[in-house]
Amino acid sequence: MNERRIVTFLSDYGLEDEFVGVCHGVMLKIAPHITVIDVHHNILRQDIRHGAIVLEQSIRYMPEAVHLAVVDPSVGSVRRAIAVETHWDEIFVGPDNGLLMPAVDTAGGVKRAFDITDQRFMLTPVSRTFQGRDVFAPAAAHIAKGVNPQEFGPEIRADDLVRVEMPEAWIHDDHLHAEVLQVDRFGNLQLNFGLEHLETVGLASDGQLEIRLEGQRLHVPFGKTFADVRAGEFVAVADSYHYLSLAVNKGNAAARLRAGAHSTVIVGPVGG
Amino acid sequence: MNERRIVTFLSDYGLEDEFVGVCHGVMLKIAPHITVIDVHHNILRQDIRHGAIVLEQSIRYMPEAVHLAVVDPSVGSVRRAIAVETHWDEIFVGPDNGLLMPAVDTAGGVKRAFDITDQRFMLTPVSRTFQGRDVFAPAAAHIAKGVNPQEFGPEIRADDLVRVEMPEAWIHDDHLHAEVLQVDRFGNLQLNFGLEHLETVGLASDGQLEIRLEGQRLHVPFGKTFADVRAGEFVAVADSYHYLSLAVNKGNAAARLRAGAHSTVIVGPVGG
Amino acid sequence: MNERRIVTFLSDYGLEDEFVGVCHGVMLKIAPHITVIDVHHNILRQDIRHGAIVLEQSIRYMPEAVHLAVVDPSVGSVRRAIAVETHWDEIFVGPDNGLLMPAVDTAGGVKRAFDITDQRFMLTPVSRTFQGRDVFAPAAAHIAKGVNPQEFGPEIRADDLVRVEMPEAWIHDDHLHAEVLQVDRFGNLQLNFGLEHLETVGLASDGQLEIRLEGQRLHVPFGKTFADVRAGEFVAVADSYHYLSLAVNKGNAAARLRAGAHSTVIVGPVGG
Repeated sequence: MNERRIVTFLSDYGLEDEFVGVCHGVMLKIAPHITVIDVHHNILRQDIRHGAIVLEQSIRYMPEAVHLAVVDPSVGSVRRAIAVETHWDEIFVGPDNGLLMPAVDTAGGVKRAFDITDQRFMLTPVSRTFQGRDVFAPAAAHIAKGVNPQEFGPEIRADDLVRVEMPEAWIHDDHLHAEVLQVDRFGNLQLNFGLEHLETVGLASDGQLEIRLEGQRLHVPFGKTFADVRAGEFVAVADSYHYLSLAVNKGNAAARLRAGAHSTVIVGPVGG
Repeated sequence: MNERRIVTFLSDYGLEDEFVGVCHGVMLKIAPHITVIDVHHNILRQDIRHGAIVLEQSIRYMPEAVHLAVVDPSVGSVRRAIAVETHWDEIFVGPDNGLLMPAVDTAGGVKRAFDITDQRFMLTPVSRTFQGRDVFAPAAAHIAKGVNPQEFGPEIRADDLVRVEMPEAWIHDDHLHAEVLQVDRFGNLQLNFGLEHLETVGLASDGQLEIRLEGQRLHVPFGKTFADVRAGEFVAVADSYHYLSLAVNKGNAAARLRAGAHSTVIVGPVGG
Repeated sequence: MNERRIVTFLSDYGLEDEFVGVCHGVMLKIAPHITVIDVHHNILRQDIRHGAIVLEQSIRYMPEAVHLAVVDPSVGSVRRAIAVETHWDEIFVGPDNGLLMPAVDTAGGVKRAFDITDQRFMLTPVSRTFQGRDVFAPAAAHIAKGVNPQEFGPEIRADDLVRVEMPEAWIHDDHLHAEVLQVDRFGNLQLNFGLEHLETVGLASDGQLEIRLEGQRLHVPFGKTFADVRAGEFVAVADSYHYLSLAVNKGNAAARLRAGAHSTVIVGPVGG
């Protein structure tokens, strides 16, 4: 394999302690030539789905790289550590718990996957609680240095990789049954469908949606920016990743609706 | 233009989500050779003046670079995206809303400015809500890669660039009429004048100032360090940027006085 | 001296303002070739012992580097600024207040130490409040650029370097008298001894410990992972740095026990 200059890094480690910095140190000790991009370290703690969503949405903006991602509620148990190469020559390293797969699919799909078992590429003794440092960061750095992932351990069939179910919006008559994917720091609710879904059910041109969630029923204009409504009013806009986002102009939609990731949402025509 | 090795980056994006990481990815995808310095990402949300103050105060400590700054309350509206070259060969990229100009002035003043309109240098379709990713970061990276900013679009006359009014302290008799520029995380109030202003009004040698703000009147010693007064007492010191800072030793001056950015302050002799 | 490619950076500056970014700027202005690893910037404010503990625990994961560390409650006073070279060719830069020494010892011990006094290697005038920017970051960058630390100023004898007392666990009969080193963001209490101490007093094989702290007496199983006990129960595990950690599975041990750094702890056999 060729050297790679960049490692991207996503985790739920937070920035309050030395976890992220120590992983940087481990990687630069093995591969001094790399640049590390910290994509996001505030993934909701141990929330694999949240990590998978952010990794998938951000991957298209990343350069060719080794993509290290660690959200690992089963650290220390039997889940595998994996390195996955895609058909577009991106390489992902992380736990085999579904975290990587939506991004892998977006980046060309699985070409080859390997179980990371060879201790030559780990820091030993491997800790039970910090395998980002002892297993994943070293593996990512060795790949960046030119090690072929097939040296890490046995090949895994693509079908045997663990996947998390990602919620897909579905259509029933003139309604969309959807779900909140994630909440940003302003309380905007990112829903799991885009403008093209609204068009499919004939809702894109109305300018007004009826949205039901958490026992509430809202009439919400479909706007181009938050500022299309007055402060304190609800608005639905396409966000920068082309998902529909339910927001309150200069307010917090999640708090107002007591809604969050996983809340179910039904979207239809007003009075429908 | 020559390549530049360093991009500095200031924004109000915060570090809680993937905004900053995605902009890093976008830049390194275009210009893999660069190093990005994260100057500050916790500018008060949409507070152009706060961003302008921090950018201006930090610019003198930065290496020659492309300086990317994004505090952009009017994202998605008609405000221009600009690249500004200074007489000292620094290049700034950001919205044309005044954010860049105090730092531009400190770094030599406007030599040439351009309206960023050529979509070849953007990620398209350009999102309405995340132009840091789609417009500003790509422009900064293209400059770092050697693109001449004049390729971005029409030249703008220096006089046509938007400016924010930066508060200047002024003298009336033996008083200074001043303002709080910003509050640091310890509650220290940075005022908009320095030791030389105190000297002008003959207050530097007294060792004691009368400070009025938010309906309160304080007698405050002018010290060299916080420790010149007892814990819990007010003190005025020159901060590390040579502005006068009103502080409480081991306490929080902003909370004690219920004061913050924009609070007006009158400084004079005790009993004056 | 040879150039060094990497500078590690630990401080109590936090990430809320521009302190860390400005230090990066200062270093890259002097030494444009370096990569900076941000190890940890949330050391408890002015807590030298906390900084010393984190620096010492993380140093073994860092590449050969210049190690810059700033936790400096006496900034502006007479404490010295020092550069310390170890027998393993690591170089540390920071205040002479004990912060550096546990890591220096772990990295080979003092070979040579120098008082940083030569203003050619500082930003002048040196501020009284931000010597990270004006003294320590420039010194680290000059070393990274190849300056021999002996050019900074007079050599200091190893015995004359300030040390902080690091608490050592001690044995009395079949009990360990110990102390809480630090609390992580999950409320886990890191104690100042490891598995080998438990073996010495014959407690490693029991599977159960009696722990007394803050007026409470707990019977705590000694497990391999947090998940060895039910949610809400106490467990003692070896953490990733091989220290014993007192935790509550899916809970917060520090909050439950009202304990924190410096709390004294007595560990013995159940009923002992």
